[in-house]
Amino acid sequence: MSAEIIPLKTRARSAAPTLDPMLTLTAQGMNSVNTVILDRMQSEIPLIPALAGHLISGGGKRLRPMLTLAGAELVGYTGTRHHRLAAAVEFIHTATLLHDDVVDGSDLRRGKAAANIIFGNPATVLVGDFLFSRAFELMTEDGSLKVLKILSGASAIIAEGEVDQLTAQRQIETSEERYLNIIGAKTAALFAAASRISAVVAECDERQEHALDDYGRNLGIAFQLVDDAIDYDSDAAEMGKDRGDDFREGKMTLPVILAYARGDEGERKFWREAISGHRTSDADLGEAIALIGRHDAVEATRERARHFAQRAVDAISIFPDGKARAAMAEAAMFAVARGY
Amino acid sequence: MSAEIIPLKTRARSAAPTLDPMLTLTAQGMNSVNTVILDRMQSEIPLIPALAGHLISGGGKRLRPMLTLAGAELVGYTGTRHHRLAAAVEFIHTATLLHDDVVDGSDLRRGKAAANIIFGNPATVLVGDFLFSRAFELMTEDGSLKVLKILSGASAIIAEGEVDQLTAQRQIETSEERYLNIIGAKTAALFAAASRISAVVAECDERQEHALDDYGRNLGIAFQLVDDAIDYDSDAAEMGKDRGDDFREGKMTLPVILAYARGDEGERKFWREAISGHRTSDADLGEAIALIGRHDAVEATRERARHFAQRAVDAISIFPDGKARAAMAEAAMFAVARGY
Repeated sequence: MSAEIIPLKTRARSAAPTLDPMLTLTAQGMNSVNTVILDRMQSEIPLIPALAGHLISGGGKRLRPMLTLAGAELVGYTGTRHHRLAAAVEFIHTATLLHDDVVDGSDLRRGKAAANIIFGNPATVLVGDFLFSRAFELMTEDGSLKVLKILSGASAIIAEGEVDQLTAQRQIETSEERYLNIIGAKTAALFAAASRISAVVAECDERQEHALDDYGRNLGIAFQLVDDAIDYDSDAAEMGKDRGDDFREGKMTLPVILAYARGDEGERKFWREAISGHRTSDADLGEAIALIGRHDAVEATRERARHFAQRAVDAISIFPDGKARAAMAEAAMFAVARGY
Repeated sequence: MSAEIIPLKTRARSAAPTLDPMLTLTAQGMNSVNTVILDRMQSEIPLIPALAGHLISGGGKRLRPMLTLAGAELVGYTGTRHHRLAAAVEFIHTATLLHDDVVDGSDLRRGKAAANIIFGNPATVLVGDFLFSRAFELMTEDGSLKVLKILSGASAIIAEGEVDQLTAQRQIETSEERYLNIIGAKTAALFAAASRISAVVAECDERQEHALDDYGRNLGIAFQLVDDAIDYDSDAAEMGKDRGDDFREGKMTLPVILAYARGDEGERKFWREAISGHRTSDADLGEAIALIGRHDAVEATRERARHFAQRAVDAISIFPDGKARAAMAEAAMFAVARGY
């Protein structure tokens, strides 16, 4: 497959992009990564593997470590260092999910009861800290200061993005620019770092390293945009999180930002009340979905996502065509097509 | 001053050990450390320095970075690398305090409203994550993989200790051994790492490195024992945390473990009810303090602390006598004498 993608809208449903090529490409390596993950989440304190395992065995796609592995294939790396580092990436991600569950007061995560519901907030916070520390132990064992710099920097940026999102919560005036900054930090920074480190272990040149960073960053933005769209998509299949969570929490995501911008004064009044927390019933959620539908705000969000996915695909065009590049390109298209 | 300490009980009150020699020894270095701390807690997201600053400027003694600086003096290190690393140590400590406040649902910290009370649990968790990431950025900038290994390992152990403490909460059968394991992990591991890294930057031999680790570890245990004693000490001055917090939270600390072990069946019944959360009134706290007093459990806890403080002092006897060693020895004695 070339880097030129067929516009999604014209694709037949049967030809919908999938994650399959990516899964095939990384299957063997992911076995090694999973072994590291299971090995390093152990502890003499039984609550730690119990709680960590609830989330880690809970059906996540492990997309981020997969990016590290796919990147390694793309650049022709033949060693095994990236297995441990990919596990570190997944631990950082898992730690942030655990802390997010506490921060959001979530009930569901990946369609199961969230860790904090079963194990309580205290243990959930602390096991997040444990996994975060383990991630840095894994990186230290690998020994690359460059990888440590990339991932410690990404971790700080993730936390900043999460705090920024918290600050923007219930703020109806949040702009699209600010929203893009938030998801660039809270989501895309780890996608970028996960991709980039494959080039570091393979000792690629700067240009290749940046290309993989760009791929991951744009893919991460596309991925988050679609996640946020799905929460308001009347056609979408049930996702693994509570439907309408973003709405009830007053999170300013792009579908809301666009529906507010495109709405008339009456609609804006509704959004101000809803986002400030005064309209949280199922009927209000229905109204929100209807307004978002009226202004094509889900489709517009997906269109933005398509733009970033295309940038991701183009970023890796400097690498030779082949199985790895094709799988990574299709993964980007898949990120956009999810939930259709 | 030699490493041989005068038994505390026979010291006149006027000769009570203080932290002053330690403060003097490290004053200049701590200015540099504080500059790094203030610089690196900044962020474009205003809530981050506001929340971090609430705790960081909140009157903590910064004992842990002080240990790194004192250790550097002890081994004759003349560089400046330890300033950045000491700041990293304080960031790790601050991150754990922020998360502890959420875990414990604390109202007070260092005599002020706890961060979670002012800023809420979500922001408190996330700013903890931010500081933790910043700590690893600082270490990575320094570039010593050995320091990274020591501090990432300590961070994982701290989290394990906190989870273990959570598991032991409201468990009246918790033994002194288990309690010592918990405080060895949640408190002493960072004291040990903070001391040890001074030997690493100074490129000392293994024996010196271990001596500083032993000093910090034993000091940390002594420090935590006295902290836990003070919570039940009828004579102690008001501390910066809510009096009786440990009691109401059903935390199994040594004064309770000893009072339970030494108590008759009626007293044990009281303790079982109290620790399981069925006796939390002020009158119950008064009864707990009375029972602990009857069995000299506070004094026995301090006696245990004295033992570990003495081991700390003896651990550094391999270093030449001088200002640094004397200050560190007196700091160990001060840790035990606090609250008298």
